[in-house]
Formats: sequence, C-alpha cells, structure tokens
Amino acid sequence: MVTANSFVSMKQVNIDDSFWGQYTQLVRDVVVPYQWEAINDRVEGAEKSHAVQNFKIAAGLAEGEFYGFVFQDTDVAKWLEAVGYLLMKQPNPELEAIADEMIDIIEKAQQPDGYLNTYFTIKAPEDKWKNLTEAHELYTAGHMIEAAVAYYEATGKTKLLDIVCRFADHIAEVFGDGPDQLPGYDGHQEIELALVKLYHATGNEKYLNLSKYFIDMRGTNNFFEEEAEKRGWTSIWHKNRIHIDKKYFQVHKPVREQAEAVGHAVRVVYMLSGMIDIARETNDETLLNASRTLWNNIVGKQMYITGGIGSMVHGEAFSVDYDLPNDTVYAETCASIGLIFSAQRMLQLEPHAHYADVMERALYNTVISGMALDGKHFFYVNPLEVFPSQCHGHNHNYNHIKPVRPEWYGCACCPPNLARLLSSLGDYLYSVNNDTIYSHLFIGGKTQVELNGNSIELTQVSELPWQGKVLYEVSVDAPVSFGLAVRIPGWSDHASIYVNGEEIELSGLMKDGYAVIHREWKNGDKVELKLDMSIKRMKSHPKIRANAGKVALQRGPIVYCIEEADNGGNLQHVRLPKNAELKLAFNDELAGGVVTIEADGLIEEASDWSDELYAANAELQQKPKKLTFIPYYTWANRGEGEMMVWVKE
Amino acid sequence: MVTANSFVSMKQVNIDDSFWGQYTQLVRDVVVPYQWEAINDRVEGAEKSHAVQNFKIAAGLAEGEFYGFVFQDTDVAKWLEAVGYLLMKQPNPELEAIADEMIDIIEKAQQPDGYLNTYFTIKAPEDKWKNLTEAHELYTAGHMIEAAVAYYEATGKTKLLDIVCRFADHIAEVFGDGPDQLPGYDGHQEIELALVKLYHATGNEKYLNLSKYFIDMRGTNNFFEEEAEKRGWTSIWHKNRIHIDKKYFQVHKPVREQAEAVGHAVRVVYMLSGMIDIARETNDETLLNASRTLWNNIVGKQMYITGGIGSMVHGEAFSVDYDLPNDTVYAETCASIGLIFSAQRMLQLEPHAHYADVMERALYNTVISGMALDGKHFFYVNPLEVFPSQCHGHNHNYNHIKPVRPEWYGCACCPPNLARLLSSLGDYLYSVNNDTIYSHLFIGGKTQVELNGNSIELTQVSELPWQGKVLYEVSVDAPVSFGLAVRIPGWSDHASIYVNGEEIELSGLMKDGYAVIHREWKNGDKVELKLDMSIKRMKSHPKIRANAGKVALQRGPIVYCIEEADNGGNLQHVRLPKNAELKLAFNDELAGGVVTIEADGLIEEASDWSDELYAANAELQQKPKKLTFIPYYTWANRGEGEMMVWVKE
Repeated sequence: MVTANSFVSMKQVNIDDSFWGQYTQLVRDVVVPYQWEAINDRVEGAEKSHAVQNFKIAAGLAEGEFYGFVFQDTDVAKWLEAVGYLLMKQPNPELEAIADEMIDIIEKAQQPDGYLNTYFTIKAPEDKWKNLTEAHELYTAGHMIEAAVAYYEATGKTKLLDIVCRFADHIAEVFGDGPDQLPGYDGHQEIELALVKLYHATGNEKYLNLSKYFIDMRGTNNFFEEEAEKRGWTSIWHKNRIHIDKKYFQVHKPVREQAEAVGHAVRVVYMLSGMIDIARETNDETLLNASRTLWNNIVGKQMYITGGIGSMVHGEAFSVDYDLPNDTVYAETCASIGLIFSAQRMLQLEPHAHYADVMERALYNTVISGMALDGKHFFYVNPLEVFPSQCHGHNHNYNHIKPVRPEWYGCACCPPNLARLLSSLGDYLYSVNNDTIYSHLFIGGKTQVELNGNSIELTQVSELPWQGKVLYEVSVDAPVSFGLAVRIPGWSDHASIYVNGEEIELSGLMKDGYAVIHREWKNGDKVELKLDMSIKRMKSHPKIRANAGKVALQRGPIVYCIEEADNGGNLQHVRLPKNAELKLAFNDELAGGVVTIEADGLIEEASDWSDELYAANAELQQKPKKLTFIPYYTWANRGEGEMMVWVKE
Repeated sequence: MVTANSFVSMKQVNIDDSFWGQYTQLVRDVVVPYQWEAINDRVEGAEKSHAVQNFKIAAGLAEGEFYGFVFQDTDVAKWLEAVGYLLMKQPNPELEAIADEMIDIIEKAQQPDGYLNTYFTIKAPEDKWKNLTEAHELYTAGHMIEAAVAYYEATGKTKLLDIVCRFADHIAEVFGDGPDQLPGYDGHQEIELALVKLYHATGNEKYLNLSKYFIDMRGTNNFFEEEAEKRGWTSIWHKNRIHIDKKYFQVHKPVREQAEAVGHAVRVVYMLSGMIDIARETNDETLLNASRTLWNNIVGKQMYITGGIGSMVHGEAFSVDYDLPNDTVYAETCASIGLIFSAQRMLQLEPHAHYADVMERALYNTVISGMALDGKHFFYVNPLEVFPSQCHGHNHNYNHIKPVRPEWYGCACCPPNLARLLSSLGDYLYSVNNDTIYSHLFIGGKTQVELNGNSIELTQVSELPWQGKVLYEVSVDAPVSFGLAVRIPGWSDHASIYVNGEEIELSGLMKDGYAVIHREWKNGDKVELKLDMSIKRMKSHPKIRANAGKVALQRGPIVYCIEEADNGGNLQHVRLPKNAELKLAFNDELAGGVVTIEADGLIEEASDWSDELYAANAELQQKPKKLTFIPYYTWANRGEGEMMVWVKE
C-alpha cells in the first residue's frame, strides 16, 4: 500500500532560479538577520518580542519577567531552524556562532528533568502540563525539536539535538497510559510531525511511538475537560472559565474519523502532516485514508484560489464547505505553509500531480504574498478583496485585514515560518520512487540523486512563472536507465516534451499527472517541457457564493488581481466582460519585473448620482475601462489601496 | 427658530386599520400577556429571564440571587410601559391589577434614598454609581421613568410616578458639578429622553435640567476613565481591565460635535432623541443643528433600505459611511425603533416629509420584521441576506444571524421595545403646527384634535400598504379654517388629491413634502389621496459596495425580498434583468395575505460542473427562472431558508 517515494534532501539541491533565487537570497541576506534583530528587540517601531530575553531570564543570565505569548519561545526555534537550512547550503561562521551562542542559552534554560519552556519556567513553574488545551507546551517543544534536527543536519553539532532529546524523553515520561501519566495531547498540533523528524535524525523509535501516541489519542477521550476539571476550569485567555470548543482543537472526533476540516486551520494542516507521517512510518492504511479524506475536503471544498485556507478570523479557522468570503477571509500565511507540508508528505505516499499543483498554488500566491519584497514586512492574513476604508478598526469584521504589510507581529508565527519554508525550498522539488525521479516544481538548479547506486545530476532551467519553458539536463558518468517523471500542471491545457530536440508522444507516458519518460539516459541528454501559458478565466464552484457571477484570471501558477494603484478605486463597479480581450504586458517596476495582464473592462459609473442613499429606477452607466491585472503576490507594494481577485463578469 | 409642532397624543387617536390593526391587536392579546409570562419564567423552552424575581428578591419578598444582565430590570419597565399604552386605549382591570401588583413590588424594592436597581441592591450594593460606563444604571432608571409616565398618563395613578421621582431626585443629587457629585453620564443613553417625559408629566424643571446636564456633559470630559481609575479599572465584562472605546459610547466628542454616527447604534439614536428633546425644550439651535447633522449622517450614509441601522455585530454598532453589508449586518430591531423615536422628534421641530419617510421605512420593514406573526417569536438582528448554512455557529461572522425567529432572548431588549412601540403607535400619526394638522403616516382610524379652541375629528381610511388610496373625512360641529397637511411619500412619483371628489392642483400646495390644504372645512368634507404604487427597482448609492450591480424591489413603503420557500436555493445565482416584467400577485396564505411580485428572472446554473473547486473557462448557463418577491417583513415565516433583498441585475 504505502509506497516509498522519498524526497531528495535540500542538501542535494542547489537552487539557481531567476524567480525563486531572489527569495532564497532575501531570506539569507535580509529575513533571517532581520528576524534575529526582531526577536532581540532591536527593530525600531516593531512590536516587542522579548523572545531571546525570555531564554536569558530562564537561563539565569538576566533578570526580569517573562513577556509575550505562551508560545513566544517558538520564534527563537523557528529562527534557529531557518539558520539550520541556511547553513546546509552555505557556510556562515558568523551566523553559526550566533546560533551556537543562542543554543548555549537554551541549554542553560533547560530544567534538570529536561523540561524546556521559558513561559512556565519563569512565570508559572507550578502550572506545567496542567493546561495542554491552551498553553502550547508541546507545540513549543515541537518547534524546538524541528530546529534541533535542522541544525544538527546542517552542522553535525549535537548540542541542541541532545537538549531536545532530553526534553522528548521527559515528555515521553509525562504522557502515556500509565497510572501517573497524562493520556493527552496538545491543543496545537506540531509535536507529532516534529517527533517523526527526531526519530529520523536519531533512529530512536521512542520518538516515533510518542508521535503515534499523540495522533492515536487525539479526540478519543475528554482530556481537555478532564484537565480543566482538575485545575478548576481556569483559563489563560478567558475571564471566568475556560471555554473548550472541541472542533477548534480538532478533538471532537478521533483523527481517523475527521472527514471535514474544522477549527483552527494551522492546527488542521500540522495535524494532517503528522497523520501522513505516521501513516507512512507505520504502514497504517486507515490513517492514510483518513489523511486523504481530510486533504480532499480542504483542497476540494475549503481552499481559496490563492491556496489560502481558513475563512474565518474567529478561531483563525475553517468555516463550512464552500464558504469562502474574499473580504472577511483569514488565509493565514502559516496555514498555507502547513498545507505545503501536507502536500509534500502526501506526495511521498502517492506521487500524484494534484498534490504538487496545490503546493505550487499555495507557494506562488499566498505564501509569497505573505512577505514584502524588502523581506521586512509581512502579512499574517492574505485577503482576496480589500477596501482599506473598512479596515483600520472602523468595521470590526475587517480588523484582522491589513491593507499593507506590517513590520513584525507580537504574535510572530508567520514571518519565521516563511523564513524556514523558503530557506528549505530545496526539500520540495524532487522525489525518488524506485527507479523514477519525480520533478514536482519548476524551480531551476542542480540536483544530485543517488539511484540504485548511480549518481545522477539533474540540471533544471525554468522560465516559470512568466514563460512556460523548462529544460532538464542529465549528467551521468555512464548511461543509466531510469524514469524521469515531469509534472504536467493542472493549469496547462496542453504540454509538449522534447527529448534531445525531438518531440515525444505524451499520451502513453502520462501517469497521475506526470509524464514519465523511461529510457537509458546518457550524459548531456536534454528534456524540454513546453507548457500552456494562456491566460485562464477561472470560475469557481457554483456553491461558493462570494464568487457567483465573478471571474478571476490565472496564468501558469500565478493568480492575478486588480489593484487601485493601476485601476483607480471603486473596484466593486468593475466588470470583465466574457469576451474582453486579454493582453500580456510587463511591469518592470513592480517586484523586480512581472508579467501583467491588460484587459478591456467596464466600469459602472454614477456620475450624476445625487446624495440619496437609495433611488428608484436609477441607471448606472457602463463605461469602457482599461484594466491592469497584477500577480496577486505583488499586491500592497505600492501603498494602501483597494484590491480584488474575483471580478464581476 | 424652533417651531412648536406637537404630536397628537395617542389618547386622541383610535387606530382602526386593516394592516396595523392586526399588530395592535396582537400586542394587546398576545405579546404583552406572553411577555409577562416570559419575564416570570413561565414560558417553556424560552431563555431564563428572572426579571420579576429579581424585584421580589430586592423587595425582600423572596430569597435568592440576582440573575440576568445588569439591565435586567428594564424588561419589567418596558413591559409596564406597554401596559400603560394598552390601558390608555382600552380598560383592562385584570391587566391593571397585575401591573399594580408589580408596582407594589417595585416600591418595596426601592431603597430609602430613592435608589432603584435590583442588580446593585441584591448583588453589589457597594458598587452603586461606580461604573457608569458599563452598568446601565441610568439607562435602567430611564426605562422605569418612561414606564411610570406612561402608566400615570393611562391610569392617573401616581405610585410608580412617585417612585421614579424619588429616584430621579436621588440621581439629581448624585450627578452634577458639585464637590460631592459625579460629573458623569451613562454608558447607555436613555435617561435623557426619559427625564424630558418626566418633566412633561410633572412640570418639574429639575428633571429637564438633569437631562440637559447629561446631554451637555457627554463627551466633554474623561469621566469613564476617571471612574475606572477610582475603582481600579475593574470591568463587568472583561477579564483583566476595562476597555473603554470612547466611540462605542459616543463620548469621543461633545454631542454637539458628533457629525458622524459611531458606536452602538441604539445608544446613538436614543442619544439623538434626547438631543432633539433638549434642543426643543431649551430652544438650543446649536443642538438642533447637531441633531440634524447626526440624523443626516445616519439616514443619508448608514441606513439599510429596510430602515435598519448598525452594520456590525461587534459593538452592535455603526461602521463607516456606506459600509452596509447585507449578510453580516446587525440592524437591531431596537435601533430602528430608536430611529423612529428620533424621526418623530425631528418632525416636532421641522415637519418635513423626509423624517416621516424614514419613520415609515423603518416601521414597515425592520420593525415588523422583528416579530413573527404569532407575536411570540422575535428577531433581534434583521439581516438583508441569509444563507442558513453559514449560521448555526459554523461561521462566526454569522453567529448573530438567526435564520428563524427565536422565542425569547436572555438579553431581551427587542421584544418589549417592539411591544411598547406598537402599543403607542397612535403617538406617531398626527401633529399640529399652529393652524395645520399634519398627517404623517397612512394608518386608519379616528383622531380628535383641538385646534385654536375648535374640536376636529379626523377619520382616516387607508388602503396602504397594498393599495395607494387614503381617505380623510373631517367632522366638525361648525366650519373651521385650518390646514390639512398630507404627506406625499418619497416613494410616490406622483400623487393626486381630491377634495370632495374634485381634484386639486398640488403644485402650489407642496411644502417640505406635504400637500397643505388650507380651507374652511365643513362637516363631512372628504379628502382622497391617490399615491403611485408602481413597483420600483431600487438602486443604492454607488459607494455601497455590497449592492454594486444589484437591485431591490420596493412598492409603496414595502421593501421586498426573495426567499428559498418560493424560489429554491442558491439565490446567489439569481438575476433580475433590467427589462424583466414585474407583475403583482397576491399570496393569501402568507402573513394574513400580502401582495407579492412575480418576475421573469434568470438563474445561472452549473448542471455539469465537476467536483473541481476552480475551473478554467467554465461557462455557467443562464436559464429563465420565475421569481417571487415577498414583503421583507414576512420573511422566515415558512421555516428556514435562504433570503435576499438585493438581487443581481
């Protein structure tokens, strides 16, 4: 059942891509250094972090009170994880020294029993493990574990790995079915997938079993109510009494029975990633089926066209099937990152282009929309329609919508999450399944693959996302037989492939969305892929009410939007007729140069509208209007203004 | 400047109207008796009230704890006020005995110093007057004052009036600029307008001055912060510390400088009513101008076509100009009732049909939408677009939207507010200005007017809202010269008036929206008014984004909607073409018989849509669809289903 389709480690992948190169460079040169400043409270005007200082206090190296969220430690952990990925690709002794120093502090902050969490150590040592529902204790542990594994794999240094092993050993003592153990799990999933990484790094099955325990137990008992009862129903957040919304935490049912994504979106996709990991590691078919069901619900009924998920600010949560408002949307950057984690893990189990399509959709749209092109301003929420006059606290339904990217957040989950994803992008490109190498994303660079004892170097040159040409070149010492599976994206109506200049017939080669070319490859063999880059007028499922009568433009993987900077205001009156001519253009001032789309649209104008709020038989005039569509991810880079993805037809 | 245009008291008005008769009857026979049961906790399945029990406990007649909101007493007060109005029109010894008994309890619940509030008496006697921001103490007093005035005017009995005078005397000692007084006002306006009523009932100027004090002081100091500082920033609602949003309470500016309606909508219109009262009583032109400015902002930029106001659930509040979402709307029944209070008061100052148009719009649409036709189910929130799948707690943006009317609310402000408005409807029909009698609403019945020593009886027979014919007949002992000012509603494109069967030329008679017919009236003189009842395709101001490209139907004062019961689901795909034929029909099963509108509409259907969430170049087919529009106020009387006022064109 469960196939072994392993992703090629980012260690073997050297990205060299005209589009993604700017992001990987940005993360290295700006984002990671900037975030270090931010978590050390050295960025003027940014919200206070205190994350590093908390560790110093817990380590006895400084005096003071804990400050920040109960999960403030994760900002340090995610930063360290990103540092690990950077060091995997390029030595940086200075950065490594800073990280080592941070790890020394973390070591001192660890308690003798292995416990590690500055909130509880400084502020509430007697409250450890008493409010898993709200306190993010295992979530925070999970992020530290992920950091440790990345840092160990990059540097070979074991200090942080040893720290988290001690912590994980302690957790394995605290949780379980024994008489003095807690039969519980965390309110925020994350440790599940982290423990699988720790298992891989150490080979210690205890960590795999602990992860499986959390997955298996979730939603099977009333742990949150029971721990609440024990501590007197206190709450970290609520005035009188904790309110436990089981769906918010995905504990309303055992995970194997959760057919619909509900509650906090990030938790769902982190949970799903852990589920897929355990399904793979333990050959658990029921868990694989449950993962597939949950995945299909998310991407088939609850995903924005931008790859965003979570349509409600309340609980940063999923709503119900097909309820995808564009303006009150949540679509947290972290949730789309988690969706990518899940997609990559599903690809490991069943290489189907559908998963890679979603990964690509989230990556090119919501994920990179989350960061300004200076690497210093970030979106947490990624709306598909913005009218700034509603934001700024005037209408509370839009309080969470920022019309421009802020510098840093007190609750800073998204920026470091972006940093760790973009710095480990190489992990998402290629996988190997038996004798076949899969290419999932069109991101250029060189990749080393070991296949049945043969060393293969694959060089990809991609003109995506602006042009549909991708070139692969094979370097081998001697001819090797293997399959090269090239993804044909869902957005491409047709594709052609040329091997050494000669077009090949694809129909017989297609398997689950990949063109699988089996042959004996010789050094210098070239595969050229040509994709359909026509502009697509996208419609959405008729049950998505917010998009009824509306159209969105997509070209290649890029979803487009209209912005006030190009089109003026009152975008609610803009229409894109069915027969409107759509022309490609290029804006070399926006985001380092992007392909835009010019269209002959219409705008309904009311030049002679009186002051009346409502009028009988008033006619608005439709006037021609040149429209400029820009890539969604580049919105809000030219000041504050209206923006809209779905336009009236 | 300030003219004296006095409304004819409901005592002089006997409503006998085929449309409104059912409502006044319903309030008398069902609503008021039912609400007495509800506030005595004798309605099975309804939310607990405890309102009467709180008074018994405070009176020492029962044991127990206070239960309910801090303003729970107002449910009793509003009920007593409605009883007063009922008794004004029809003796009911049994009901009067019940009310007298309740008043005896209230008397016993009053403290020796005049203080009256069961929350503080039972639960927190040491906290009196320490949290005006949140505790609704003066608001609750105001409702008891209104009840006392109504009950006194109906019965001549002074017990409750004496109670509230003692309370008001106490309040006048507590509040003021003296060294031991509080320079404050209530977080929820209401006492201002109530004290003006008390002044009228007693002639005691102290009450007028106290009202003026509250109006004048509001927003001129930092009273809420100062009282918070004194009591240590505690809050009734918030966990750690009170959060004072000055705009929510309309204390961000002095009332004379508040040009835009912000914050809690009911508070705004109650405040506005008090402002207009004080402007009139004290000849205060600046206050009149401020009232006019605030009114114009509300109805010119922040009102739904149904006369609903308040577009946000957060704070039950106004948003910003032209921000009128139809689905996440608030449009509280109480707010439209308060808007009617303000409209009537503005008419007293300047008889302009514009105010009566708004009064009528709110009355025929939002207000009566607030109550099911059984008199036992009520809407607090009156949406203009409902998709039940979003409600029921799935999407929290719609948590406040109920797709059918619930029985009773724990926070039961709206049902008794409806009862007191509908039972005093006679107060809103006629006013007298010098020698002119104004007819503001087309509601049939007999009215006695004393005009310069002459007794005039006016009989109105109205065929509204279904037909546009209104007949007035004058009864006088001897011919009397006076003006009869008949409102020509804004929705009527043309109107004709016949005096004793002969059409008169209106052009010279029109003044501020009224046709003013001056003549020597003889006994039996008849005036017939014929109004334009054509169906109007209404458009909204282009800045109202939610309605861009949409149309609503209105006929006479009635706004229409489409409902799933008649039209099936997926209303988001329904279109009403510009040239669609609109035909009148009659549904005699709905709400006792209503005029409906049949239209040749379209629906976009996607019969062959695959499972995909998004698809390129997919075409939805437009198919003919017979549409049935029903009066908005009758929605949600046939089970749960979709509903929509603004339909795509």
